[in-house]
Amino acid sequence: MFTAFSTVRLHQTDAAGVLFFGDYFRIAHDAYEEFLESIDYSIRFVIEEADSLLLIVHAESDYRRPLRVGGKIKTEIIVNRIGGSSFVLGYSIKSIDGATIANLTTVHVAANRANGKKRSLPKDLADKLRQHLKEAD
Amino acid sequence: MFTAFSTVRLHQTDAAGVLFFGDYFRIAHDAYEEFLESIDYSIRFVIEEADSLLLIVHAESDYRRPLRVGGKIKTEIIVNRIGGSSFVLGYSIKSIDGATIANLTTVHVAANRANGKKRSLPKDLADKLRQHLKEAD
Amino acid sequence: MFTAFSTVRLHQTDAAGVLFFGDYFRIAHDAYEEFLESIDYSIRFVIEEADSLLLIVHAESDYRRPLRVGGKIKTEIIVNRIGGSSFVLGYSIKSIDGATIANLTTVHVAANRANGKKRSLPKDLADKLRQHLKEAD
Amino acid sequence: MFTAFSTVRLHQTDAAGVLFFGDYFRIAHDAYEEFLESIDYSIRFVIEEADSLLLIVHAESDYRRPLRVGGKIKTEIIVNRIGGSSFVLGYSIKSIDGATIANLTTVHVAANRANGKKRSLPKDLADKLRQHLKEAD
Repeated sequence: MFTAFSTVRLHQTDAAGVLFFGDYFRIAHDAYEEFLESIDYSIRFVIEEADSLLLIVHAESDYRRPLRVGGKIKTEIIVNRIGGSSFVLGYSIKSIDGATIANLTTVHVAANRANGKKRSLPKDLADKLRQHLKEAD
Repeated sequence: MFTAFSTVRLHQTDAAGVLFFGDYFRIAHDAYEEFLESIDYSIRFVIEEADSLLLIVHAESDYRRPLRVGGKIKTEIIVNRIGGSSFVLGYSIKSIDGATIANLTTVHVAANRANGKKRSLPKDLADKLRQHLKEAD
Repeated sequence: MFTAFSTVRLHQTDAAGVLFFGDYFRIAHDAYEEFLESIDYSIRFVIEEADSLLLIVHAESDYRRPLRVGGKIKTEIIVNRIGGSSFVLGYSIKSIDGATIANLTTVHVAANRANGKKRSLPKDLADKLRQHLKEAD
Repeated sequence: MFTAFSTVRLHQTDAAGVLFFGDYFRIAHDAYEEFLESIDYSIRFVIEEADSLLLIVHAESDYRRPLRVGGKIKTEIIVNRIGGSSFVLGYSIKSIDGATIANLTTVHVAANRANGKKRSLPKDLADKLRQHLKEAD
C-alpha cells in the first residue's frame, strides 16, 4: 500500500462548498503519479516516451463524506489485480483520522504507442506493481 | 433523452494529447446542468437555495475512444431510474457522427440542506425527470 | 471583434460561491479557441502540428463583478496589437445585458516547434488577425 | 518569504505537453492557501465565515519557461505591498535548482461579507502579512 497526503484546495471545491465530485479522480491520479514515482517509474517517461501507453478504460468512485477547503486527506493506493495486459488500482481517500471519504477504482490497459493496440504490461512495471498487490500487503 | 453539444477545449486535454479521464465527469456534469435548465430546474437554485440537496454518491465511466483538442461531441443524457429519494443518470458521449466515446453513470440522492439526512425527491423534480425516463423514451 | 457565449458551470465555481479567479483564463482561452476556429485556423493544427507554436508569455485579468453558477456570459475578443512575431488579445467578459465582469489580456509569441526560438508570425494567421484588429473594428 | 513545494501533475498539463497557462494561477493560489495556513489564518475560515472577504481584483503572470508533467517546483511568495484595505502578493515559481519559470502577482481587497463593500484589512491579518513584507525580508 502506498499513501499520498494532500490538502483540499479552493479551486477543487465548488459553489456547493465541497470538493467537486469529478475532482476526486484528480486526487486519485495525483496519488497514482506519486506512487509511480515511488516505484521509480517516471510519469513523464510514461506520458512522453514509453513504448507502452497505460490507458484508463474504466474509473469509478463511491462518495461517503464531503470534503471542504483546507481539509487534510490521505489517499491509500493498492493494486487490486494484475493481468497480462492490465491492472486495477483501488484508492481509499480518508481524513487524517482515518474516516473514509471516498473509494475509487481505475482500470489501466497497456497499448502500443505506435498503433494503439493492446499489448502485454511492461515486465518491470508488472514486477513493481506486484509488490503492492492486495494479497501481498 | 436530452442532448448537449460541446467542443473539447485545450485545458481539458493533458500531456498525453487527449482529454484527461477525470474531465469526462466535467463534461457529463456540464450536460446535466444544461439538462436541468432545459426542464426549468435551475442549477443555481439547487446549489444555493433548495431545501433539498442532490448529492452524487456514485459515479463511473467506461472509456472507448480518446478525444483530442477541438473535437466536437454530443452528450446524450437519459434517466435510468427514479427511486423514492434518488435517481440514476446515464450519459453517452459520442462524436458528432455517432461513434461512442464514453459511457458514464451518476447516482444522485436527495438530502435535507438543514441536516444532511436523506429525504424524498422533490415532487416537481421527480415529475420532470420521469419524462426523460429510459422506458419512456 | 469576435463574441463567444457560455454559461458558468459548477466545476468552475469555488467554495466562495463564485467563479474561481484562475478560471477566467480558461473562459478566455475557450473563446480564443472558438475565435481561431471562426477564422479557419484550427487549434488542433496549432497544438499538434504547426511549425509555429504560439506561446503565451503574459496574461492578466481585472475583475469587476463576481460570477455565479448558471450565469450567462459573453466574451468579446479583440486583437489589440500585431507585431512581427507576436500579437496581443483583449477579452471583455460581460453579462448578457452588457455589464462588464472582467477584462483580460494575453500576449502570444510565435516560436519554432523544432527549437523553441522566436520566429515571425505565420503570414496567413497575421492576415486573419488583422481583420479583427482594434482600429479596424 | 514563504516557499511552497509542488509537482506538476498530469491534469495540469495540456495537449501542448506543458502546464496550461491558466493553471499557474492555481499553483499560485495553492501556495497562497499554504501561506495563510503557515501564518495561522485558516483559508476555510476566510472562505466560509470571516466578516471580511478577500477579493482578488487583479492577477497577472509572466511566463519564462514551460513546465512538464512530473516537474518539481517551488513557489516563493512575498508581500509586495499592504494598504489600508488591500494587499499585493508576488509569486516566483522556480525549478528546484532555482531557474525562474513564471512570476505572478495578485491584488486582494477586503470587503464586508454582508454587503460586499470595501473595508479595512482585518488587523490581525495585516500584522501577519507585514512580517512577510518585501523590505522586511
